[in-house]
Amino acid sequence: MNQTSNTTTSNPHHWLEQITRWYEKHEHTIINELREFLSIPSVSTDSRFRDDVLECATFLKEYLQDKVGASTKLIPTQGFPIVYGELIHNPRLPSILIYGHYDVQPPDPLDQWNTPPFDPTIRNGAIYARGASDDKGQLWLLIQAIRFAIREQQLPCNIYFLLEGEEEIGSPALTAYLQEHALPAIDVSLVSDTSIPSENQPGITVSLRGIAYFQLDIWGPARDLHSGVYGGAVLNPATLLTHILNQIYDIHSGKIQIPNFYNDVIELTTQERTLLAKGTPPPEAFQQDTGLPPHAEQGYTYHESRTIRPSFDINGLWSGYQGEGSKTIIPASAHAKFSFRLVPNQNWQTIAQLVQTFIQSLIPNGIRYKLHTFHGGNPYRLPLNSPYYQLAEQAYALTFGTQPLPLYEGGSIPIVSLLAERTQRDVLLMGFGLPTDQIHAPNEHFKLHMLKRGIQTIGTFLYLLAHHHESQT
Amino acid sequence: MNQTSNTTTSNPHHWLEQITRWYEKHEHTIINELREFLSIPSVSTDSRFRDDVLECATFLKEYLQDKVGASTKLIPTQGFPIVYGELIHNPRLPSILIYGHYDVQPPDPLDQWNTPPFDPTIRNGAIYARGASDDKGQLWLLIQAIRFAIREQQLPCNIYFLLEGEEEIGSPALTAYLQEHALPAIDVSLVSDTSIPSENQPGITVSLRGIAYFQLDIWGPARDLHSGVYGGAVLNPATLLTHILNQIYDIHSGKIQIPNFYNDVIELTTQERTLLAKGTPPPEAFQQDTGLPPHAEQGYTYHESRTIRPSFDINGLWSGYQGEGSKTIIPASAHAKFSFRLVPNQNWQTIAQLVQTFIQSLIPNGIRYKLHTFHGGNPYRLPLNSPYYQLAEQAYALTFGTQPLPLYEGGSIPIVSLLAERTQRDVLLMGFGLPTDQIHAPNEHFKLHMLKRGIQTIGTFLYLLAHHHESQT
Repeated sequence: MNQTSNTTTSNPHHWLEQITRWYEKHEHTIINELREFLSIPSVSTDSRFRDDVLECATFLKEYLQDKVGASTKLIPTQGFPIVYGELIHNPRLPSILIYGHYDVQPPDPLDQWNTPPFDPTIRNGAIYARGASDDKGQLWLLIQAIRFAIREQQLPCNIYFLLEGEEEIGSPALTAYLQEHALPAIDVSLVSDTSIPSENQPGITVSLRGIAYFQLDIWGPARDLHSGVYGGAVLNPATLLTHILNQIYDIHSGKIQIPNFYNDVIELTTQERTLLAKGTPPPEAFQQDTGLPPHAEQGYTYHESRTIRPSFDINGLWSGYQGEGSKTIIPASAHAKFSFRLVPNQNWQTIAQLVQTFIQSLIPNGIRYKLHTFHGGNPYRLPLNSPYYQLAEQAYALTFGTQPLPLYEGGSIPIVSLLAERTQRDVLLMGFGLPTDQIHAPNEHFKLHMLKRGIQTIGTFLYLLAHHHESQT
Repeated sequence: MNQTSNTTTSNPHHWLEQITRWYEKHEHTIINELREFLSIPSVSTDSRFRDDVLECATFLKEYLQDKVGASTKLIPTQGFPIVYGELIHNPRLPSILIYGHYDVQPPDPLDQWNTPPFDPTIRNGAIYARGASDDKGQLWLLIQAIRFAIREQQLPCNIYFLLEGEEEIGSPALTAYLQEHALPAIDVSLVSDTSIPSENQPGITVSLRGIAYFQLDIWGPARDLHSGVYGGAVLNPATLLTHILNQIYDIHSGKIQIPNFYNDVIELTTQERTLLAKGTPPPEAFQQDTGLPPHAEQGYTYHESRTIRPSFDINGLWSGYQGEGSKTIIPASAHAKFSFRLVPNQNWQTIAQLVQTFIQSLIPNGIRYKLHTFHGGNPYRLPLNSPYYQLAEQAYALTFGTQPLPLYEGGSIPIVSLLAERTQRDVLLMGFGLPTDQIHAPNEHFKLHMLKRGIQTIGTFLYLLAHHHESQT
């Protein structure tokens, strides 16, 4: 096969040199085009930006078509369109699904930005803009690596792009799409939307927690009542709410008390726990960061408690009078937002059912309540013996000169587990964000150095993947 | 003694007729003067009304001087002045301390008033204005009854007026004054600032609960943290807050769990409980009113639970995200306002100490919190065998044609217990408000019929008191 000549005739070091030269030659254009991408305020959560999000989808579609050579289309949804693209050499070649998102978080508070969030500015070797790291900048490095490797070098791989405009609002349209439509058969999905520990310590995210998020509303008296006149003869909805929340979670053991909650939790092996422990920040650094001494579930370290163990958090709480001074009322209602982080193999819908049953059992007769289940997501874990993990490991090691760590993340990217479920293939999370990127905050930025490193690493990974495929066939 | 001729030579029925004739003759003036009093917007809580509150104090002082013949002065305080007045015939005569307040609640929401709150309007036999019932209208009937009985009829009693302008903000100035100054020796204090069950069923408030009000602030992480990244390794302040609140109160038994909380509670006798039970609204009416089936402390009826038993209520609760949708944070802080209603002989400062000790014992190491104790107040109870209670009972029975009920109120009027403590005498709460008066709400009003009934009843009470004193000496 002619197309495979590059991978068979040269070694990865040589390939990496080629990427680097290519990047340095096109750096100016790549960055300018990224600036154009970043200057479109594609804030998905705010309807005032609706047209901008749509414009951003079109920009991306056209870019993939014109500059990467993909056949593209906008897949209409109930919300913002999915940018779909195909770059197919030959169906028998290894196929990679690229996932990313073109929407961004709102830029507020605006007055804390040093330069406007949608006027991308380069200073101190970084590009400052909303979305610079999450996820436009990281999507950009994927696209550029593919542009080089597949378009220019004709590396024998097929690429599918599946880029959504609703990640920051929970991916409703893409979730529905994935549930209703079959995806092309692929070998692996590739995502750059995560961070690595530091510029010198790369990592591959191998574990994500799932989430189940709820709002509980309890209605008490028909109106706020005078707590003197009625206190003692009326079940206070705030009191009931605190009772229920306290029944869910035992603060002393750090364990969730809902029956059968832990049934499906997979324990890590001793070896995995040892590897995980290597990534544990020292307690002093943790306390420096959070302002609190670390807390842990009984039987686990605090780092395990926030990564490979389920957790419970109250995210919001409100009832009655919140102003200055005192107001002597029995509130008419009480509300809480709370969520669980889930770990393999918990299923968020099973958990939601358990939560519902448990709460129902705690509501006294005659009390009106509503338990609303927000969109949840399942946990995800990539086995360390996955060949794709090992290829990614090599790619990072070649580019960074340092072996990457497997990263067990406490956060959730529900679309990742859904992609894995629907493709029945691994999802590889090769991130290049840094903890200092200020994502979701004012002055979000992405280091140009990391943009280059990302293109080098992904380009090398594609090379290794194609090479691996050849050696298998 | 010449002055006593009226009381000895005529009977109470005759006296009541005289009051009635006097009232009917002066009704027009009395109501017009009340309108003038009501038209001064003496909103104590809002500094924009500062001058109006001061004007109202002066109006009241001059009225007592010019129309009632009292020697008066304004006692300056840190806040609004106390209107003090004396109407002394002879130090050996029975002396009555009149307490009332000339300040009013804010009129908001203004758009719900049918006529402006400070443009007193008469319709459907009632006067509509902020303060019409609470307390200007009720203070007015006391003043008019005294004007008739003491000024015009020279009834042998001494009157002291102690009228404050800060009742609606918790009586700080009067509380300080009472703690620092001795009061003249008196026989009984008289207050008209309460309600009776209905126009046809008078009552005398014999019991008030005390109050101890707190705000608990718990600080967690230095900022809102991502609940995915940190959840499980950080003690969530909202979780700790709900834990603490839940430790204070057991929702199943309705009992407060703070050690020694009930130590000083006086149990009612079987006879008192039977009398109290007569005033219990039927559960259907209660549910109609509150929208909830009645709740009760174990071992007590729901009416007892809200009148002669202590209670615990969460009055406000806030933490984290309260907006639409979901936000995955561990909140940086959590806050609650909560209060206890207290019963004789609980002391609010003792209770505050118990609460403080209890909460401190529940705060884990390294967690920053603040427990703020707002002004509290002690409970009050007038024994049913008090001679003043019995005289008041007669006065209501004569005027209304119905025996009044002893009323056990769940609410608190901290100044009442303080007056009782400082004078070492009973405080008689002879109210004429109706449950439908809309106090503290838009369209507050006072029935003119009740203004008249009040003047008749208080006038008769004064007569009976003077007569009683004579028979004792």
